[in-house]
Amino acid sequence: MQYCFGVDIGGTTVKMGLFRTEGTLVEKWEIKTRTENRGEAILPDVAASLKSKMEEKEIGHLQIAGIGIGIPAPVDDRGIVQNTANLGWGYKEVKREMGELTGLKVKAGNDANVAALGEMWLGAGKGQKNMIMVTLGTGVGGGVIVNGCPIVGENGAGGEIGHICVNYEEDETCGCGSRGCLEQYTSATGITRLARRRLEKNSSDTVLKKENLSAKAVFDALKEGDKAAEEIVEEFGTYLGHAMANMAAITDPAVIVIGGGVSKAGDILLKYVEKHFKERAFFANKETKFVLAELGNDAGICGAAKLIIG
Amino acid sequence: MQYCFGVDIGGTTVKMGLFRTEGTLVEKWEIKTRTENRGEAILPDVAASLKSKMEEKEIGHLQIAGIGIGIPAPVDDRGIVQNTANLGWGYKEVKREMGELTGLKVKAGNDANVAALGEMWLGAGKGQKNMIMVTLGTGVGGGVIVNGCPIVGENGAGGEIGHICVNYEEDETCGCGSRGCLEQYTSATGITRLARRRLEKNSSDTVLKKENLSAKAVFDALKEGDKAAEEIVEEFGTYLGHAMANMAAITDPAVIVIGGGVSKAGDILLKYVEKHFKERAFFANKETKFVLAELGNDAGICGAAKLIIG
Repeated sequence: MQYCFGVDIGGTTVKMGLFRTEGTLVEKWEIKTRTENRGEAILPDVAASLKSKMEEKEIGHLQIAGIGIGIPAPVDDRGIVQNTANLGWGYKEVKREMGELTGLKVKAGNDANVAALGEMWLGAGKGQKNMIMVTLGTGVGGGVIVNGCPIVGENGAGGEIGHICVNYEEDETCGCGSRGCLEQYTSATGITRLARRRLEKNSSDTVLKKENLSAKAVFDALKEGDKAAEEIVEEFGTYLGHAMANMAAITDPAVIVIGGGVSKAGDILLKYVEKHFKERAFFANKETKFVLAELGNDAGICGAAKLIIG
Repeated sequence: MQYCFGVDIGGTTVKMGLFRTEGTLVEKWEIKTRTENRGEAILPDVAASLKSKMEEKEIGHLQIAGIGIGIPAPVDDRGIVQNTANLGWGYKEVKREMGELTGLKVKAGNDANVAALGEMWLGAGKGQKNMIMVTLGTGVGGGVIVNGCPIVGENGAGGEIGHICVNYEEDETCGCGSRGCLEQYTSATGITRLARRRLEKNSSDTVLKKENLSAKAVFDALKEGDKAAEEIVEEFGTYLGHAMANMAAITDPAVIVIGGGVSKAGDILLKYVEKHFKERAFFANKETKFVLAELGNDAGICGAAKLIIG
């Protein structure tokens, strides 16, 4: 079977890709995610779009190895979702429903885990079997790949990197209800929060302005040699580097991939994280490599396809 | 093939077990570990012992599925050890050498990972696929089982639970060279250290005596209602509970198994760990169960046999 589909379901759009099973993306496209009526149209819409792509390309059922799907929620190893924050779904047997809609083999996984798998297959982790991917966006997500497979866990909640506690003294509450989560210091909003706290202490020695703080503004100022920005990025790097050292002691990865919007700051970001990682890494993990993600928004469809290819 | 061997190589003795592949221990025995001359006799001694057991039981080569071996060192997925602390071995191709000595299929793994596998197969984690085992002995070791397999990692150093950092303010150095490792607070020696520190502040309000402090003395005093002992166990439980909450966010286990000499304190220990775990666990992990290990010193030979049975 020469082809498979990778599907990445998000709250606004569903991204889809047609892949050759040896590892090339033939074509990608997207459709709107219709979340109304508890998201009942989402899977039928995807099935219809894949079917019309097969007709357009004159590809028959027997040429398709299957459909991999990434979903923004915990997904267990039977392809079942208990709840979603932004698709409208409650309990949903994604694997079974999509199988019935298409007659094809289906596998489903959490979107962050699937994106990590994509980076391992075709991106920054190419050729590796043991990898951590951290996605620094509005929140902090991630996926941990062990011996070629993402850690799914008992409740489909493996790889919740953003919610490991890195500061037991924190008094502000994280979106998850706890305090001191990695997400509170290293997401785009977390970096902005660190910057705001710094400027509350002293805002006279920096080009940063309280009115338009952002993670990008902080890294831009750092590149211009701003000392306050450097303090903020040191703090960010300390939290992320130390958290990665603890994760490495548990999963012993070959490479740690940093992705998401914040990672657009570039290699300078890696330098600060790696420095603090080395301070605390177990001796067997000191040489773990840090790299930036390469696939951007395509990581999800690539990893979803890889679920099928295995 | 009805039988397999489980071998657990330690610094003083090698424990061995003959198992039926459906999961019963037929017989166990042990021999001395001869570590002199860079441990060159260890594997030949084991091979000879297994051979004489086969002769005694009139079991032929074709009835043996293979030999699983647990080793007190990182072991990569090719069954290669780079170095050992207490066997005398440097670089050693354990899987290849043992295969040549016996003509049987061989698999090798780290002893703590293998013990975790044993508890999952026949002990406290029976029927589970996702499990963390923490062994609280002289040091702190452990194994993390994901989807039925131990996390080995890129350097065979997966599951180094004792060396995640839980206190960035610590000024005493851990055996690994870092500071603030879980092992410094939750091993038998770590608990003794916490007790010593407590008595240095105030030793007038407790039955504990500086001269004969031990983890056992602390838990015995706790059971008699000693307040200072309770403070010490609270501190122990805080470090271990919070560390397990962070590990659960990454690996999402069904159950966390606590073993090693310290766990002989019994269920009271679990109560203190579980309380602090719940304070910090990600919502998907709040219901994770805590249980005591069941197999004691047999966990190693059981898990080694399970490496073969798969």
